Amino acid sequence: MSFIATSQSLHFADALPLQGGGTIRDYTLAFETYGTLNAARSNAVLVCHALNASHHVAGVYEGQPKSEGWWNNMIGPGKPVDTNRFFVIGINNLGSCFGSTGPMDTHPDTGEVYGADFPVVTVEDWVNAQARLLDQIGVQQLAAVLGGSLGGMQALSWTLQYPERVRHAVVVASAPNLTAENIAFNEVARRAIVTDPDFHGGHFYRHGAIPQRGLRIARMIGHITYLSDDVMNEKFGRQLRQTVMEETLPAGTPAVAPAAGGYRYSTQDIEFQIESYLRYQGDKFSEYFDANTYLLITRALDYFDPALAFGGNLTLALARATAKFLLVSFTTDWRFSPARSREIVKALLDNRRDVSYAEIDAPHGHDAFLLDDARYMGVIGSYFDSIAKELA
Amino acid sequence: MSFIATSQSLHFADALPLQGGGTIRDYTLAFETYGTLNAARSNAVLVCHALNASHHVAGVYEGQPKSEGWWNNMIGPGKPVDTNRFFVIGINNLGSCFGSTGPMDTHPDTGEVYGADFPVVTVEDWVNAQARLLDQIGVQQLAAVLGGSLGGMQALSWTLQYPERVRHAVVVASAPNLTAENIAFNEVARRAIVTDPDFHGGHFYRHGAIPQRGLRIARMIGHITYLSDDVMNEKFGRQLRQTVMEETLPAGTPAVAPAAGGYRYSTQDIEFQIESYLRYQGDKFSEYFDANTYLLITRALDYFDPALAFGGNLTLALARATAKFLLVSFTTDWRFSPARSREIVKALLDNRRDVSYAEIDAPHGHDAFLLDDARYMGVIGSYFDSIAKELA
Repeated sequence: MSFIATSQSLHFADALPLQGGGTIRDYTLAFETYGTLNAARSNAVLVCHALNASHHVAGVYEGQPKSEGWWNNMIGPGKPVDTNRFFVIGINNLGSCFGSTGPMDTHPDTGEVYGADFPVVTVEDWVNAQARLLDQIGVQQLAAVLGGSLGGMQALSWTLQYPERVRHAVVVASAPNLTAENIAFNEVARRAIVTDPDFHGGHFYRHGAIPQRGLRIARMIGHITYLSDDVMNEKFGRQLRQTVMEETLPAGTPAVAPAAGGYRYSTQDIEFQIESYLRYQGDKFSEYFDANTYLLITRALDYFDPALAFGGNLTLALARATAKFLLVSFTTDWRFSPARSREIVKALLDNRRDVSYAEIDAPHGHDAFLLDDARYMGVIGSYFDSIAKELA
Repeated sequence: MSFIATSQSLHFADALPLQGGGTIRDYTLAFETYGTLNAARSNAVLVCHALNASHHVAGVYEGQPKSEGWWNNMIGPGKPVDTNRFFVIGINNLGSCFGSTGPMDTHPDTGEVYGADFPVVTVEDWVNAQARLLDQIGVQQLAAVLGGSLGGMQALSWTLQYPERVRHAVVVASAPNLTAENIAFNEVARRAIVTDPDFHGGHFYRHGAIPQRGLRIARMIGHITYLSDDVMNEKFGRQLRQTVMEETLPAGTPAVAPAAGGYRYSTQDIEFQIESYLRYQGDKFSEYFDANTYLLITRALDYFDPALAFGGNLTLALARATAKFLLVSFTTDWRFSPARSREIVKALLDNRRDVSYAEIDAPHGHDAFLLDDARYMGVIGSYFDSIAKELA
């Protein structure tokens, strides 16, 4: 039983200065809101999204089955972030392919589709754009800003760019910057896209092409890093593809019986269930995700590093933050490991900030931040309960 | 000061039955030997290679600078595997692109280049082919079979296929089979190759094409999994590409100064040193490695699973082995983690076999098995000392 969500959008004519130089103007931001802004305008919660998500955070679209928002288990009436008490705002970031202005849209100066000419955007740029949108909808101060993974980086950045506008920041499965290995995975994914002959230097739209080969590879790499080794072994192990798993194969895919003895002995056919799962995820992704958006979002991840301007000293970097913090990490997350969250916790404690930290023992790797886990939901729920009490 | 190595080869006219069905005939195996076979023919050591290696294990080729064999630090006069005492044999596996018959060679039935029609070969097939070669050169029993990674799988398989022909097996940085995550990384690499338009279904030779894009991606993924997160952070971290690192950039690449403020803000240019390193490794690899060989070797890895025929029970599977074992693993190897080596150790101990096990605290991840580390070299050296004493 989900509530009905409605996508909205706001147009911004004025130029937004960008961290990488230049500006972007005449852009649109798509957003959704759930719940009601109270009279004191003090109960707003901003939810920031990660790589493959959007402003459609919770609820369903009218008449569209299976259209639940990506954090529908976390946000809604009676849920950990309770929309009966909070006014929740989801915003789609600049450069996305899900409603806000992105590479598939028209450059106002040239009348051509942006494509590869869409400006490089950073976490800081996104936060500035989000702040302008909040200005427009009359939210001066957030009760909380909340995000997981790349969304957590935005939440952290909010406390540094607009300390006076954030009372609480909830940073889930995130990191103060990417490691070399994180960047390496992003780079391989980007090379797969950019070297796909259908990429055409990022101007594939005008060639009527889509670099689907590259997008598939990028998504397969991503999926490996989202899951833990343990959960992959538990879910797939060395299981051969014997029966069609309904949730992982396209409708109509025939079940293929394995050869006698188990293996089919082929270098190209699907032999193991994990291969079937990854190929399906790659195929699906390549049909809806924009290749230029993928490049932009992974670069925003690479670039995020608030300590950079402070000689790498995160404690100095976070001195500006005045919000209260909840950090959450997951034991089996090897993409953004608990150690990375603890770096943030330590830097905040060094600054004598008010920080809570929960390290959730969950088997699902990085993906855990999107999944149901009683302890995880309990921690977030309790924290938002306490925020709600401050409002009363 | 390396000794001179000479590549040799033997032709096999008779058909070798293959595990995946069918046979291969009229094939050549390239090999090298170092040291002298003693009168009792009891001091032979077979070295099995992993993905990107060959029969050129040690020494240098005459007149070719920088042509050291891939395990030259381990094998040679006075080295841990001392060629003054042992007769060491390196064999290039079937399906390789480094001298033995592989996909780039001509199918004797059709007169056409094999390409994608080269039969799928397994670890067991390789061991059978190696055994025939040993027959030819007059080695009935091995003092030891030694290998790292995929080479370790071959060493283990020797003890199961030819228990009476192996006195010692040294299995380094290996595993009793691949995990789902291991298979997943292999599958992404294969998809990158197979979906490269220049792959032409594996018959790219006749199109005068090479699927270099796919090979580059495959190698980049491989490199990430060979290194530990820690060593990547230590070696590259978030360092920007400011100065040319001689060992990681092609000769003549200009040093590019970073933009003011550090970042250049580009989704396609190299921004971080780790990107430069990976691109260079990918480029280099794509110039010499055969795409069909890559598919074959990663599939041999996927398929290896001696416990499969025993319902997954490794203890039962290893009951056939009569050799004495040394297992070595490296603490930061997340590709073939110490836990995987310990599974083999446990299964051997369950069978009351003679097993030594060393878990080396090394920062370099899977790559550690190819690198110098005093404790690692010491363990291997001591073990081979004790084998040499048995010979005396």
